[in-house]
Amino acid sequence: MTRHLLTLAAAAALSALLLVPSPAAAELVTKAVEYRQGDAPLEGYLAYEAGGPAKRPGVLIVSDWMGIGKNSKARAEQLARLGYVAFVADIYGKGVHPKDGGEAGKLAGQYKGDRPLLRARVRAGLDELRKVALVDAPKVAAIGYCFGGTTVLELARSGADVAAVVTFHGGLDSPTPADGKNVKARVLVLHGADDPYVPAAQVAAFEDEMRAGGVDWQLVKYSGAVHSFTIPDAGNDNSKGAAYNAVADRRSWEAMKAFFAEVLR
Amino acid sequence: MTRHLLTLAAAAALSALLLVPSPAAAELVTKAVEYRQGDAPLEGYLAYEAGGPAKRPGVLIVSDWMGIGKNSKARAEQLARLGYVAFVADIYGKGVHPKDGGEAGKLAGQYKGDRPLLRARVRAGLDELRKVALVDAPKVAAIGYCFGGTTVLELARSGADVAAVVTFHGGLDSPTPADGKNVKARVLVLHGADDPYVPAAQVAAFEDEMRAGGVDWQLVKYSGAVHSFTIPDAGNDNSKGAAYNAVADRRSWEAMKAFFAEVLR
Repeated sequence: MTRHLLTLAAAAALSALLLVPSPAAAELVTKAVEYRQGDAPLEGYLAYEAGGPAKRPGVLIVSDWMGIGKNSKARAEQLARLGYVAFVADIYGKGVHPKDGGEAGKLAGQYKGDRPLLRARVRAGLDELRKVALVDAPKVAAIGYCFGGTTVLELARSGADVAAVVTFHGGLDSPTPADGKNVKARVLVLHGADDPYVPAAQVAAFEDEMRAGGVDWQLVKYSGAVHSFTIPDAGNDNSKGAAYNAVADRRSWEAMKAFFAEVLR
Repeated sequence: MTRHLLTLAAAAALSALLLVPSPAAAELVTKAVEYRQGDAPLEGYLAYEAGGPAKRPGVLIVSDWMGIGKNSKARAEQLARLGYVAFVADIYGKGVHPKDGGEAGKLAGQYKGDRPLLRARVRAGLDELRKVALVDAPKVAAIGYCFGGTTVLELARSGADVAAVVTFHGGLDSPTPADGKNVKARVLVLHGADDPYVPAAQVAAFEDEMRAGGVDWQLVKYSGAVHSFTIPDAGNDNSKGAAYNAVADRRSWEAMKAFFAEVLR
C-alpha cells in the first residue's frame, strides 16, 4: 500500500522532472479490418495505441449475440489502453447486424448448432489478429461475452494455440465434452452466481469437462449477478435473468487483468 | 503493461537520482501479544512495518487446525510488508499446540462443535487487533486457512463489524445457516476445485446460505487444487486430499490482495 503510493508518486515526480509525456496522451488507433473465412466476408475491429513497444500481446474479443457493436468496441479500446493489440472478431459476417434479441437469438442459435462453423469463424479472427505486425504472436488470448464466451471456449476446445481464454457470463455447454482434452489455453470463467441461462448443472458439467481434460482452469462466481452482468444496456432488473451489475463488471474486469498479467507476460 | 513497466522504470530511476531509500528496508516489527477471552489466556502474534502511516488497515489471521505456527506467522509478515497491521488470533489458548494431525483434528473438532465458543475466541482476537493504535478501526478484515476459514466465516455469521472475510480452503459448513443474514462483511472464498474435504454439496449449501442472507460474496475455484493448497508442508500428493499447489497459492494470494485493494481503501 505504502510502497504503491511511493512508486506512483516517484513516477509522477520523474515525469515532471524529465518532461516525459503522460502515457494517457498516446493516440488510440482504431479501424475496421476486412477478412474472410472460406468464402464468407467478415469485418472485425482493431484497436491499439500509437507509439509504444514494437511487439505487444494480442487479445481477441468475441461479442455477445448482438454481434460487433459499441460494447465490444469499447472493450477493445480499454484493452488497447492497457497496452494490448485488441481485435474484435466477426462471427456473423460483414454487414450482418441483428436488430433485436429475437434475431440475435436465432443467429447465435445457428452458430451454436454448428460448432465446426463457429470454430472456423473464431479461428479466422485469431489468424487475422496474429497477422498484425505489432502482435507478439505467442502471447495471444481470447475473451468473450455471453455467446462470445461459448465461442472462445470452442476456440480452446478446437486445440487452438492461445495462451488464455476468458469468458464473461458465457455459455459453458459443449456437445462434445471429450474435446476438453484438446484445450491448450489456460481458462478463466467469470460467472454470475444467479445466472439462469448458465445454471448449476451446466457449470458442473463444464467443470467435469475441464477436469477430465487436465485443463488449467479457474471459475469465479459473483453474487447477485445474472446473465449479461457486464452489459450496461441490460438494465438492472435481475428478475429478467439478464441485467447489468456494476460491481461484478468491475471485479471481473480486474480478474481478467490480473490473469493476463500472469499469462501474457 | 507498457505503462506498468514505464512506472517501475521511472520509480527506479528517481530512486537512483534522489537516493530515496528502498521501502523494502523498513524494519518489520513482530511480537507475541497476550490477551484473554473470558478466563482463557490467549497469545496472538502481531506484525507491522516500522515507520509508515500512523493509521493502517488491519488484517486478522486465523491459522489452520495446527494453530499458530510458522505458516500463519509468515502470512502475518507478508501482510505487514503490504502495509497492513496483521494479527494472528489464538483460538486454542496460550501454550496449546497440537503435536500432529490427530491432536489437531480433535481440538479443531471441539471448537467446530461449539460455534458460540469459536465465535467468542475469534471475536477476542478481532477486539485485540482493533486495540492496536496503528489500526484504522473501520478498515479491518479477517482471513483464515482450513479450520481458520471456517472460523472467520463464523466471525462474519456472528454479525461482527468487519469489512471483509477471506477463506483459503476453508470449511464452509454451518449448523445455523439462517445466520447468513447477519453477515456484514464482504466475503471471498478461495477454494480448491478438487477439495474432498469441502465437497460440492457443501459449497452449494454455502452459496444458498450467502444468497439467502443477501451477502456480497465471491467464490473462486482453482483447478487441480485440493485441501491445504496454500500450506507448503502439505506435500504434493493430491491423492491424499490435502496438498500444496504453488499456482493456486499464488493466484489465491493475488485474489486476496485485489479484494483488499477494493474493500480496505
